[in-house]
Amino acid sequence: MVAGRVMVVGGTHGNERNAPWLLEAWRRHPALLRRSDLALELVLGNSAAHAAGVRYLDRDLNRSFVPALLDAPGPGDRELERARELLALHGPGGSHPCLVALDLHSTTAAMGNSLVVYGRRSADLALAAGVQQRLGLPIYLHEQDRAQTGYLVERWPCGLVVEVGPVPQGVIQEPICRQSQLALEAALEVLAQARSGALRLPQRLVVHRHLGSLDLPRHGDGSPAAVVHPQRQNRDWQPVAAGDPLFLTAEGATIPYHPREDQEIGPVWAVFINEAAYGEKGIALSLTRRESWPVEPSWGQALADLARELQSPG
Amino acid sequence: MVAGRVMVVGGTHGNERNAPWLLEAWRRHPALLRRSDLALELVLGNSAAHAAGVRYLDRDLNRSFVPALLDAPGPGDRELERARELLALHGPGGSHPCLVALDLHSTTAAMGNSLVVYGRRSADLALAAGVQQRLGLPIYLHEQDRAQTGYLVERWPCGLVVEVGPVPQGVIQEPICRQSQLALEAALEVLAQARSGALRLPQRLVVHRHLGSLDLPRHGDGSPAAVVHPQRQNRDWQPVAAGDPLFLTAEGATIPYHPREDQEIGPVWAVFINEAAYGEKGIALSLTRRESWPVEPSWGQALADLARELQSPG
Repeated sequence: MVAGRVMVVGGTHGNERNAPWLLEAWRRHPALLRRSDLALELVLGNSAAHAAGVRYLDRDLNRSFVPALLDAPGPGDRELERARELLALHGPGGSHPCLVALDLHSTTAAMGNSLVVYGRRSADLALAAGVQQRLGLPIYLHEQDRAQTGYLVERWPCGLVVEVGPVPQGVIQEPICRQSQLALEAALEVLAQARSGALRLPQRLVVHRHLGSLDLPRHGDGSPAAVVHPQRQNRDWQPVAAGDPLFLTAEGATIPYHPREDQEIGPVWAVFINEAAYGEKGIALSLTRRESWPVEPSWGQALADLARELQSPG
Repeated sequence: MVAGRVMVVGGTHGNERNAPWLLEAWRRHPALLRRSDLALELVLGNSAAHAAGVRYLDRDLNRSFVPALLDAPGPGDRELERARELLALHGPGGSHPCLVALDLHSTTAAMGNSLVVYGRRSADLALAAGVQQRLGLPIYLHEQDRAQTGYLVERWPCGLVVEVGPVPQGVIQEPICRQSQLALEAALEVLAQARSGALRLPQRLVVHRHLGSLDLPRHGDGSPAAVVHPQRQNRDWQPVAAGDPLFLTAEGATIPYHPREDQEIGPVWAVFINEAAYGEKGIALSLTRRESWPVEPSWGQALADLARELQSPG
């Protein structure tokens, strides 16, 4: 593996303003970020959408890193071109290679300070376990969702998303910034310890494993027939039992949760409840299973192998 | 004055979704809204921006009702054309005339359930006083701001804005809907009593009179140099004294409030703190003076004269 940096991305969605504010602050005042002696690449993800103040221009950049799209011949739309550009610049084989991608997001859902891991790559799990050990953050393990693919961090050898909320789109709030920075600094510390061989991972990793997503009930014409139930709003990371209120119709009728599939038998936990940007994706909330996994020695080894190639500044 | 209806508008800003959800519910189930025997016109304000999920397409519709713009020859941009269309349809001289405009908005600021009055028209003040008497809502009296003009309600003989928050753009939350409906039903009740001669107004009206707005501190290149101070966030309708924290720089320096002009000597109250859509307008928050005004008999008379021409349904 070639040597490389850690890429810190903000503004992958152009209307999430907290991480771009931090990136700009760290550019102006490098001492404000504790970097654990790692060389960083600070990247404004979707710079054009950020300038326009919208999530994206043509297509969600954080669903554009699909190999079949990236490898298709000819020019793509603006987000696909930006995805290709980011890989050409900072991909592991790029002109300024990065080996790890830490992608800082915010959400209108009450997710608190949290991590999202995509799939079960050993290095990702080791990194997430190290951050969870330091800060206790909950982890949403996203996998096996054919409707939602092409996340940025998946195209780097190791990567995590940090999700902090609730905060409205377009709004910067100091506690959101502070929490984002805490998560990032913890991740950098884990990477630095992995590089030096000093990393000691916990015995267990607690994840909330993605089961599926629920859309709002809808009328025949596609318009919503209900809203998120006020007893469900802001209760991310909390269990949902069969019969618990999920949605509320305009007429005041409560629509309770009914497990849909075999895998939803037993308790489930809700995340990303009423995230503004997921309406268009047909997601009112996602359901997960809370699981405690033993931390495998091979995870820490995979992260150490990769972290050994991380550069120091200067 | 010709006879007319009450126009109830939602979605004047296309990314404010709560009022459009209510309009759709009331269309499907008219009995869900207590109308006080008044004929209503339910109008989706900026229907094109609503479909696109953005505040506006070319120009803020709620700054487009400027007489010089409306009367200019030739076609305008999409919002100006929509403003002309709304007036041609539902203006007091329109094909389906309305005499009162009640414009339902939401905000990312922690405004609670509140009213905005533009200028000092007698009928507006009577209507606001009647709603305040019933629900105790705070009132932001917006006037003498040459940078912010052309509000929709100003082009109807009587009108109010209902502002409810905090809620993210693009998100529907049941308490926001419930509060919007409460304010609307109270306004309809006041209008119905004014029509029947039964309206008894309170002796005093408490307003928060607009003094001016403050932008974030900015670098030479125009980018923000600070964020709203966490001790100021969510403290709408609360007094701000000289020396109180207003903003926080990336380096952690607190920027306190200093009165800028003679009119800001004495206590001031902040509103619309960190509203997402006002960043582009250079407004981080607005300052007001809290004043208790005697309710003039002429206000109730002006509202009664107008309300007498309001139609009943059917």
